[in-house]
Amino acid sequence: MTATTLARKLEILKRIGTATVHEAQGQRGYVDRKIVPLDLRSRMAGTAYTVDGRAGDNLAIHYAISQAAPGDVVVVDYKGYMRAAAIGDLMAFGAKARGLAGIVIDGATRDAAQIVELGFPVFSRGLCITGPTKAQGGQVGVPVTVGGCVIHPGDIVVGDSDGLVVVPAAELDATLRVAEERDTREAGVRDKLAKGATTVDLMKLADKLREVGLT
Amino acid sequence: MTATTLARKLEILKRIGTATVHEAQGQRGYVDRKIVPLDLRSRMAGTAYTVDGRAGDNLAIHYAISQAAPGDVVVVDYKGYMRAAAIGDLMAFGAKARGLAGIVIDGATRDAAQIVELGFPVFSRGLCITGPTKAQGGQVGVPVTVGGCVIHPGDIVVGDSDGLVVVPAAELDATLRVAEERDTREAGVRDKLAKGATTVDLMKLADKLREVGLT
Amino acid sequence: MTATTLARKLEILKRIGTATVHEAQGQRGYVDRKIVPLDLRSRMAGTAYTVDGRAGDNLAIHYAISQAAPGDVVVVDYKGYMRAAAIGDLMAFGAKARGLAGIVIDGATRDAAQIVELGFPVFSRGLCITGPTKAQGGQVGVPVTVGGCVIHPGDIVVGDSDGLVVVPAAELDATLRVAEERDTREAGVRDKLAKGATTVDLMKLADKLREVGLT
Amino acid sequence: MTATTLARKLEILKRIGTATVHEAQGQRGYVDRKIVPLDLRSRMAGTAYTVDGRAGDNLAIHYAISQAAPGDVVVVDYKGYMRAAAIGDLMAFGAKARGLAGIVIDGATRDAAQIVELGFPVFSRGLCITGPTKAQGGQVGVPVTVGGCVIHPGDIVVGDSDGLVVVPAAELDATLRVAEERDTREAGVRDKLAKGATTVDLMKLADKLREVGLT
Amino acid sequence: MTATTLARKLEILKRIGTATVHEAQGQRGYVDRKIVPLDLRSRMAGTAYTVDGRAGDNLAIHYAISQAAPGDVVVVDYKGYMRAAAIGDLMAFGAKARGLAGIVIDGATRDAAQIVELGFPVFSRGLCITGPTKAQGGQVGVPVTVGGCVIHPGDIVVGDSDGLVVVPAAELDATLRVAEERDTREAGVRDKLAKGATTVDLMKLADKLREVGLT
Amino acid sequence: MTATTLARKLEILKRIGTATVHEAQGQRGYVDRKIVPLDLRSRMAGTAYTVDGRAGDNLAIHYAISQAAPGDVVVVDYKGYMRAAAIGDLMAFGAKARGLAGIVIDGATRDAAQIVELGFPVFSRGLCITGPTKAQGGQVGVPVTVGGCVIHPGDIVVGDSDGLVVVPAAELDATLRVAEERDTREAGVRDKLAKGATTVDLMKLADKLREVGLT
Repeated sequence: MTATTLARKLEILKRIGTATVHEAQGQRGYVDRKIVPLDLRSRMAGTAYTVDGRAGDNLAIHYAISQAAPGDVVVVDYKGYMRAAAIGDLMAFGAKARGLAGIVIDGATRDAAQIVELGFPVFSRGLCITGPTKAQGGQVGVPVTVGGCVIHPGDIVVGDSDGLVVVPAAELDATLRVAEERDTREAGVRDKLAKGATTVDLMKLADKLREVGLT
Repeated sequence: MTATTLARKLEILKRIGTATVHEAQGQRGYVDRKIVPLDLRSRMAGTAYTVDGRAGDNLAIHYAISQAAPGDVVVVDYKGYMRAAAIGDLMAFGAKARGLAGIVIDGATRDAAQIVELGFPVFSRGLCITGPTKAQGGQVGVPVTVGGCVIHPGDIVVGDSDGLVVVPAAELDATLRVAEERDTREAGVRDKLAKGATTVDLMKLADKLREVGLT
Repeated sequence: MTATTLARKLEILKRIGTATVHEAQGQRGYVDRKIVPLDLRSRMAGTAYTVDGRAGDNLAIHYAISQAAPGDVVVVDYKGYMRAAAIGDLMAFGAKARGLAGIVIDGATRDAAQIVELGFPVFSRGLCITGPTKAQGGQVGVPVTVGGCVIHPGDIVVGDSDGLVVVPAAELDATLRVAEERDTREAGVRDKLAKGATTVDLMKLADKLREVGLT
Repeated sequence: MTATTLARKLEILKRIGTATVHEAQGQRGYVDRKIVPLDLRSRMAGTAYTVDGRAGDNLAIHYAISQAAPGDVVVVDYKGYMRAAAIGDLMAFGAKARGLAGIVIDGATRDAAQIVELGFPVFSRGLCITGPTKAQGGQVGVPVTVGGCVIHPGDIVVGDSDGLVVVPAAELDATLRVAEERDTREAGVRDKLAKGATTVDLMKLADKLREVGLT
Repeated sequence: MTATTLARKLEILKRIGTATVHEAQGQRGYVDRKIVPLDLRSRMAGTAYTVDGRAGDNLAIHYAISQAAPGDVVVVDYKGYMRAAAIGDLMAFGAKARGLAGIVIDGATRDAAQIVELGFPVFSRGLCITGPTKAQGGQVGVPVTVGGCVIHPGDIVVGDSDGLVVVPAAELDATLRVAEERDTREAGVRDKLAKGATTVDLMKLADKLREVGLT
Repeated sequence: MTATTLARKLEILKRIGTATVHEAQGQRGYVDRKIVPLDLRSRMAGTAYTVDGRAGDNLAIHYAISQAAPGDVVVVDYKGYMRAAAIGDLMAFGAKARGLAGIVIDGATRDAAQIVELGFPVFSRGLCITGPTKAQGGQVGVPVTVGGCVIHPGDIVVGDSDGLVVVPAAELDATLRVAEERDTREAGVRDKLAKGATTVDLMKLADKLREVGLT
């Protein structure tokens, strides 16, 4: 798959959004919704560059941002730490300059206003003005657990205001196909709803409603 | 009361806002503020069409949206369930197309970004990308408990960024009158504050302040 | 220090933001980040006019707003109370009319939409439509504990989307100097990042990375 | 109903426990389970003597304990306040000496170890070493909201490790009858389970299991 | 492996406890510690009989208890539901009578005092006096997610006051061996500590302490 | 002050308990009550040996336990970290063997059952079966912030089921005197309550009650 092809696929996932992608792969890949975008308007899709970090230290995250390829999402298991921000606007600025697609932190960030203004997707558990140390190690390119979900290097990470969903690299095409079908179907449903139909009609729920006594 | 008359009254409640309406009816009708609008700019007022739903299933909600009248707010006791969204943008789209005033879910929703873009008021406890089943029943048009507040079919539900307040149908006129008086009085206060007065003067708090030793 | 000089300094702190100010004074002055601005775009800096209030009563806050000087931030220990708002839009309106820089409540507020529209910085733990009594006392101009941080009258309070940081009056100049240096340095870093450098290069992290086995 | 008769009925409710009583009156009377006994071994049943208190002040609670009759449970809406304990071991000691059945606080208490040792049932949201003021009023003998449940003076309050349930005075006999039947039936079930039966047999669930595909 | 052999191994795991078992298998198998024993003195080890249940319905759990073998732990994904208890003392009584080793519920239970008295290990997220329906299905003998940990049928589940840890069936022997070694080593350490040694000596931490500047 | 004298004073504080000590020094020294004893029956008083630790690493705590004097309480700012236990039963065993009075962790511990059985006072924010690294430094004998309270080396730390309170070394005697007076007075009150008096009489609250309209 060429980079262009991948980019096009990611663009589609980004537009379709997390809820539909999650349905499309059989309700798998759910990341705890306590990890949220700094800006609810953020939409992101990219390849995971993973970091098994240390709580309160961001040395390995600096390294990851310098090594990840354009289009990657740096995904950091920061152990849910909230007493010191893993990244701030400088690192987000650098990540954007290098063409990364976004950053996901299982822990705290800072400089929320500047990052929102920058328009770079950052997902985290919340904010903290305290900064981290730059002294400890960590591992990159290993499976990590973020928001209760195991993410492997190369997995596709999709994010928007509803949260995050992870698509295994090998399932990208299958998921994409189902997601697009679902998305197209929903567009058709929307047209009919606009013309006065109800979801009871369009989803053929009348029998079920009768069965449970609602008519 | 004609539909037009009711619509006009609801418009006034919507403009005046939840805090003033809550005061106007003697600090009653408070709904737990953990139920919040997806869009903090949302303002909503309408007649409750109630659903006693099932956690994780939205069959009865599809039914309710198809049955509620224009201007109604569909109010769902979803048992505070957060592991599967009760509604998404399709259902919100359908509800808006049918002229409903809003939807209140004691539980999770999804497709936040699309619903905010749609400009349709949805109040819930938060987000979840997982979808519900469509297999169980429920009851409509019965008293429900949402956010710790009992809501009867036909009650008026008012919502904005501060949360939700419920006005019993029979008290609509009395509440409206007090709320408007209060609102007018506050407008006058605002004018005087703009000219340099203080709330200590305008609310005649000097005696009380002296009494508690603040002067 | 003239009022103009102080105002200029506060303007700089406001622009630089809480995270950098917090670093600049050696990671001190942190206020619990559960106290957040109603509007994430708020930026505020001012001199603390403190109120040791009573949970559920705002008489002393009315007094404080009438006594504080233009440029002051009214800082209220409301005991973390969430069952009745300490202030609403009228008080915020009055505070803005008197030229105050902002209000910080360790507890609930209300009328969020109106206060956001007003463009006046209010920081609190959240919202509640219920109003307070106006019957109890309190103390003004005394040290208070807000968000776990002791704040003295005259301290400088800086706030933005990341939260709040407090600068002791006596350390204003030293903190400002370090914060500006840091801010200038970061601007230079940003330029170099835009041209393709990485934070690993700019912060000379290569040795440390080698030491912990990341290369 | 004589006091002896009432006492005997309360004794039975106490033994049967909250879960069965709650079922017996149609799953009504639920009090938020965040209000818990200091001692998980506590069992309590009594007539509500209600206090609409003030957050952080216990003057009205002193009054209530001095006025309540033997067998009463003093039930205090303390507004969920956790920054100052509503009662400590002295007040619990006094309440026990006066023959009260227990105390319920929607807020904080203190002196947990001593109260547990005393063997007097106290239910609250948690502990706080800080004490209250004794300066404000309140109301006694009025309906109060505790743990999201409206409790009227004279209602029967039953508590154990599972939490609290409220039985309206007028429904005491009906509830008691159903609860005893249920309790007796459960004793029979227990005997059969001990001899090797399963709840699937005893509750005749085989058909339902087949229907949902579990066999 | 004979049942006796397995029983002996489980007995050892139970004695050694969750923290050591977790270490012994390389810090894997962690179940969210919000799932806690009703009785902090509980110790449990058994083979998982899994139930993918429905929030608020316990029909499938009745079935599971009737089908599981002596020594099994019934492990239920109840979707974290807290508004209706999954089991109460009758079901715990039945499970104990059938020789089960324990029950784990990702959700609420009730009848805590009776279950503690019964001496049967039950782990859950908390208590609720409300009962469930007995109308929906579910699946047994499938992988389930409980407390963020995937548990397969046949996995070994160990529980005590510290929480729960899961050992894959295929790794039981290896984990047991390491756990016993660790346990024996710790017994030796304990003897030396009792005679006045420090963990700094026994774990040979002096060099590391010097390295980080603590001496 | 001789060690014997100090030990005797600590013994008194331990008996009197945290709530009374907190009152005795003017409601100061409050530690966030989320830091609780593993065993609610624990009672502890000792001199603080402080550790400014690292989240997820306990090297410095091993050192502290080896250096602290008999009667000391090791107080660790572990940054509220809950993903890896700071100490387990081995370290508690060693600390007890060396005659320490207790351990306070602002974060997680493990081996709760064994530590309770050991009868050694350990206070923490909760439990986690995961263990820490032993690789990072930290500082001992410096002021630390634990549960939002600044604790200096040498401060007296008192703990029981209600939580923790800190007494500055220089105020030990004054606090002790007031606490004993209060304790004696309370014993007298208890005697009178046992004979039928009420706290309304004994605390002379009749006038205040009349003033607020309760009679």
